[in-house]
Amino acid sequence: MNNKSITILKIGGSVITDKSTDEGSARMEDIMRISGEIAGADSRLVIVHGAGSFGHPQAKRYGLTAKFDPLGSIVTHVSVKELNRMVTDALNSAGVKAVGVHPMNCIVCDNGRIKEMFLDHIRIMLDNGFVPVLHGDVVMDASLGTCVLSGDRIVPYLAAALGAERIGIGSAENGVLDDSGNTIKSINPSNFKEVRHFIGGSAKTDVTGGMLGKVLELLELSETSGITSYIFNAGNEGNIAGFLKGKNIGTAISKAEDKG
Amino acid sequence: MNNKSITILKIGGSVITDKSTDEGSARMEDIMRISGEIAGADSRLVIVHGAGSFGHPQAKRYGLTAKFDPLGSIVTHVSVKELNRMVTDALNSAGVKAVGVHPMNCIVCDNGRIKEMFLDHIRIMLDNGFVPVLHGDVVMDASLGTCVLSGDRIVPYLAAALGAERIGIGSAENGVLDDSGNTIKSINPSNFKEVRHFIGGSAKTDVTGGMLGKVLELLELSETSGITSYIFNAGNEGNIAGFLKGKNIGTAISKAEDKG
Repeated sequence: MNNKSITILKIGGSVITDKSTDEGSARMEDIMRISGEIAGADSRLVIVHGAGSFGHPQAKRYGLTAKFDPLGSIVTHVSVKELNRMVTDALNSAGVKAVGVHPMNCIVCDNGRIKEMFLDHIRIMLDNGFVPVLHGDVVMDASLGTCVLSGDRIVPYLAAALGAERIGIGSAENGVLDDSGNTIKSINPSNFKEVRHFIGGSAKTDVTGGMLGKVLELLELSETSGITSYIFNAGNEGNIAGFLKGKNIGTAISKAEDKG
Repeated sequence: MNNKSITILKIGGSVITDKSTDEGSARMEDIMRISGEIAGADSRLVIVHGAGSFGHPQAKRYGLTAKFDPLGSIVTHVSVKELNRMVTDALNSAGVKAVGVHPMNCIVCDNGRIKEMFLDHIRIMLDNGFVPVLHGDVVMDASLGTCVLSGDRIVPYLAAALGAERIGIGSAENGVLDDSGNTIKSINPSNFKEVRHFIGGSAKTDVTGGMLGKVLELLELSETSGITSYIFNAGNEGNIAGFLKGKNIGTAISKAEDKG
């Protein structure tokens, strides 16, 4: 049995893919750099990555958020699995014992919300030194047939279910920014109303809610489970390694104000 | 809700890969022919394929049946996932709404035996016209770390859990053969002792029990759930299509003698 604390690291689709150009355009240099940074992690680690250009354009093309489309569901799922293969291959090359875990294979939703998730395999992976690597995906939905499930929704669910200690959201920005472009250091129930107007949806193709969706999910999690999350820039070298070594960077989202 | 009966079709690793030569040698022509035969299926269908040269040589090389080897577990799992991608791609090209379901992501074993399997996603797939495609895999094991889980073990578990009506085991032989090379038409608890000596293990690299393993699992299933299984030659064109249309071919394994 392994008693090290559990950390969940989200890597945004914008960090590891190019969302501005074609479908299926991976940023291999960033994927390899990030894999190297992750290789130094000491805690039990779960990685969740976004789909970026390996999922959002496909989901949009087939109108997956509006209707059930079996072919579109398969095309989108196969595409994001391909990105997951690249990420896990890079992690394995860096010495991380990464195993792809596809939400399509272990999560069921109801009306777009996680209804059930199989966790036993993930717990045994963590106990044996493996790093499960999940991702935004198309999953089966008891009401809708299939639905698009964002990595941002998987992270808080997993964190609560596994009793994680820290969450890192590696995005393409320095955190949540105010209107002068400065990072807001802390978001909590007391100041959320003041900072809410700074938080926009994603500027590019994103079917799953963008920054506001992330912040709302993480605020809810901090209130129910007391877990603090950090949104930081994973595009800057060293930030993921720093976070994994215990550094608190970017915007902290917590139950009470972060006095740090 | 879809009330059509459920059929489980196993496709042997020897049928879709070349087990006599290198690691990772797929028989693409057979995979495409079989995909075309499956496209005509009318029942709700679950496919389970073997790993063949995409899993057995790797498992043997790392000694996975004797010891826990994280790297070997990953290499073997990644290899059989690659075969699963080829099979699901061919099925999708033939018009089957195939979705890869990796046992590593939804099954946990204890001492090599299935302890827990997430099934909700498979049920929703079947209700919505998808065809889940599972395979022999390396999975997490509560006692051993990981273990090799044969497709032949997944089939009876799934059949009982889903309430399947028919099982087809598409192998590289005409069924279970007697010492003159004739197909034994029926195996049941009454004649098992007489025919047992005809049933050998696999001649080539097979870490998971060969023909005897298959027959024992299916006999047990017929006794507990009353499901009849047919072992037939999937290498012969038309046999899979025939089985899926209700034809009883090869060797029937059942609770009572098949008078057919």
